[in-house]
Amino acid sequence: MKLAILLGSLRKASFNTAVARALPSLAPSGVSFEALPSIGQLPIYDADIQAAGFPAAVTALGNAIKAADGIVIVTPEYNYSVPGGLKNAIDWVSRLPEKPFAGKPVLIQSASISMLGGARAQYHLRQILVFVDAAVMNLPEVMVAQAQNKIDAASGSLTDAGTKDVISAQLRNFAAFVRKLQAGAALQA
Amino acid sequence: MKLAILLGSLRKASFNTAVARALPSLAPSGVSFEALPSIGQLPIYDADIQAAGFPAAVTALGNAIKAADGIVIVTPEYNYSVPGGLKNAIDWVSRLPEKPFAGKPVLIQSASISMLGGARAQYHLRQILVFVDAAVMNLPEVMVAQAQNKIDAASGSLTDAGTKDVISAQLRNFAAFVRKLQAGAALQA
Amino acid sequence: MKLAILLGSLRKASFNTAVARALPSLAPSGVSFEALPSIGQLPIYDADIQAAGFPAAVTALGNAIKAADGIVIVTPEYNYSVPGGLKNAIDWVSRLPEKPFAGKPVLIQSASISMLGGARAQYHLRQILVFVDAAVMNLPEVMVAQAQNKIDAASGSLTDAGTKDVISAQLRNFAAFVRKLQAGAALQA
Amino acid sequence: MKLAILLGSLRKASFNTAVARALPSLAPSGVSFEALPSIGQLPIYDADIQAAGFPAAVTALGNAIKAADGIVIVTPEYNYSVPGGLKNAIDWVSRLPEKPFAGKPVLIQSASISMLGGARAQYHLRQILVFVDAAVMNLPEVMVAQAQNKIDAASGSLTDAGTKDVISAQLRNFAAFVRKLQAGAALQA
Repeated sequence: MKLAILLGSLRKASFNTAVARALPSLAPSGVSFEALPSIGQLPIYDADIQAAGFPAAVTALGNAIKAADGIVIVTPEYNYSVPGGLKNAIDWVSRLPEKPFAGKPVLIQSASISMLGGARAQYHLRQILVFVDAAVMNLPEVMVAQAQNKIDAASGSLTDAGTKDVISAQLRNFAAFVRKLQAGAALQA
Repeated sequence: MKLAILLGSLRKASFNTAVARALPSLAPSGVSFEALPSIGQLPIYDADIQAAGFPAAVTALGNAIKAADGIVIVTPEYNYSVPGGLKNAIDWVSRLPEKPFAGKPVLIQSASISMLGGARAQYHLRQILVFVDAAVMNLPEVMVAQAQNKIDAASGSLTDAGTKDVISAQLRNFAAFVRKLQAGAALQA
Repeated sequence: MKLAILLGSLRKASFNTAVARALPSLAPSGVSFEALPSIGQLPIYDADIQAAGFPAAVTALGNAIKAADGIVIVTPEYNYSVPGGLKNAIDWVSRLPEKPFAGKPVLIQSASISMLGGARAQYHLRQILVFVDAAVMNLPEVMVAQAQNKIDAASGSLTDAGTKDVISAQLRNFAAFVRKLQAGAALQA
Repeated sequence: MKLAILLGSLRKASFNTAVARALPSLAPSGVSFEALPSIGQLPIYDADIQAAGFPAAVTALGNAIKAADGIVIVTPEYNYSVPGGLKNAIDWVSRLPEKPFAGKPVLIQSASISMLGGARAQYHLRQILVFVDAAVMNLPEVMVAQAQNKIDAASGSLTDAGTKDVISAQLRNFAAFVRKLQAGAALQA
């Protein structure tokens, strides 16, 4: 099972990058991860640009999403919502005729220094993903609150045992969720 | 396939009741509907009442949800959100140890006289249903806007052809959605 | 300045009741509090009941809201949203021709055992209060997370110093917010 | 009274640009409008860029917001939420130490070809604006649904009389809202 990580932060020492880095060691066997192209490579969405042809970075991002068995979105919360850059990436990809997110299993994780751990971004993201028809897993949710206490800044590694346990449980559930959706789709085909 | 309808309005001449009444004639063959117990029969949620024992009306509602293959929530929007009475019913049922909504396929429909057709209630409902771990279908959405022009008040019947078509398409998709989830679950078991 | 408290929980030993009980001791001088009638006294909203005449409990609640200089809503979060009973109270009051919430300064507080402290209920509540045209203060927000560690269950008293400080700061800001709105309204009149 | 328009679309023939273009002719006397710098001029937010110094385009946008008596956000809805590019602009500006949005009166308008007229973007925007402590007006809301029927594509002009009336009423209310907030603030100072 190949999962692709869509990262909502561009900061080099991002807490969310640290969470993403920890995923392979916390996933069940048989699950691998790849990083999707950076959201920083896309222009601000402009329908006039689209009319002249999708930028290559958009097509590449869409193809990589399409090819994955599932997407893990790991993102900070900015201003009580989804980072503009992450939303911009979804805006671009949503216009591709291949509809890369349609039916795609999606998992959401967020980390922040606040007590809410990015929760507000997650619920906005869930509403956004209704329209692109993604299959977003419900529970358990991973919101890494007060991330500065759970991530070693120097090494960029997730150190909090409780957080690791929740992420492990979430990834196990997601692997089962992906298999269930794939099995159901295969039976219908 | 047995679907159960959870109605968000108590008004006798409700537009939403009219929509619910139309469902059997718009559904694909093999799909039947039953009405769930009225949300008007429940007390306002109070954890002290729960501690003394769930009211019989709550248990009955929970059992009926549990027994159905899927739930169709048909609801008005009050004050830009879910009617308090409908939310109160969900609050009660969510406390039952049987977790009636867990994994349950759910479809949402709304009707209102406004231009938005109850959309704001639907997105709040979607967030609520994350926590009870329901499997809410994404698309197509049914929001019957300006319902007074699409429903014959005297007979309480849905008359608008376009609305009927959208509901038919949604019910076909939902039947497939339910079968896909059931097939995936069966394969995993 | 007379503030009225609208309580979202009916549980006798509610964390939110404990928060509400602490407010007088944390408010600036000149600010007094009264409890609004209980949300448990209202029937589930039904437009047919309304057509036959508003229940006395609804009128009483509406009048008390209308008479207050500001409303403090203190509420738990149920199922990632506003308790059905609290929403039901707002649904009833919103139909009164006197529009008790219109222009009324509103402050929101929530307490829960979760890490989020009721945040999800607050944002749904903010959307609801747009429609009734209330003047909801932005910041600081009070979300009492892990309330079981901050409230003494035996006495029902708020014990956490940090939480007290945030509530004090919020009440000071709210008193200024109310005065500013009243002054602006007076100048316009 | 000087209002500044923050436009959420970059498309040259945008429906929202057409709405923005109509504002001066629909506003009460004494109200003038200026266009804020384009959201297309900003890089995707990156805290590492910020650490090296705010881009000049961010500072310029923040200064222009700070200098205005109020902001009118005119925006499409993308994927059931705020366009990523508009959110990105808010993300940048929110980091400026001058806090340009704090206490600033804000009005929201949206136009789209859908039946909802951008409503979903508006409620996400309202949540975002809580954190930056803007003073967002409640009612009336302007959601220009089925914009293709209300705007002349060739001339890019708003032609629908009903929409013009709603916008005029909203602008009158907003001018009063701004004056009320300014008067209240002056009395407190």
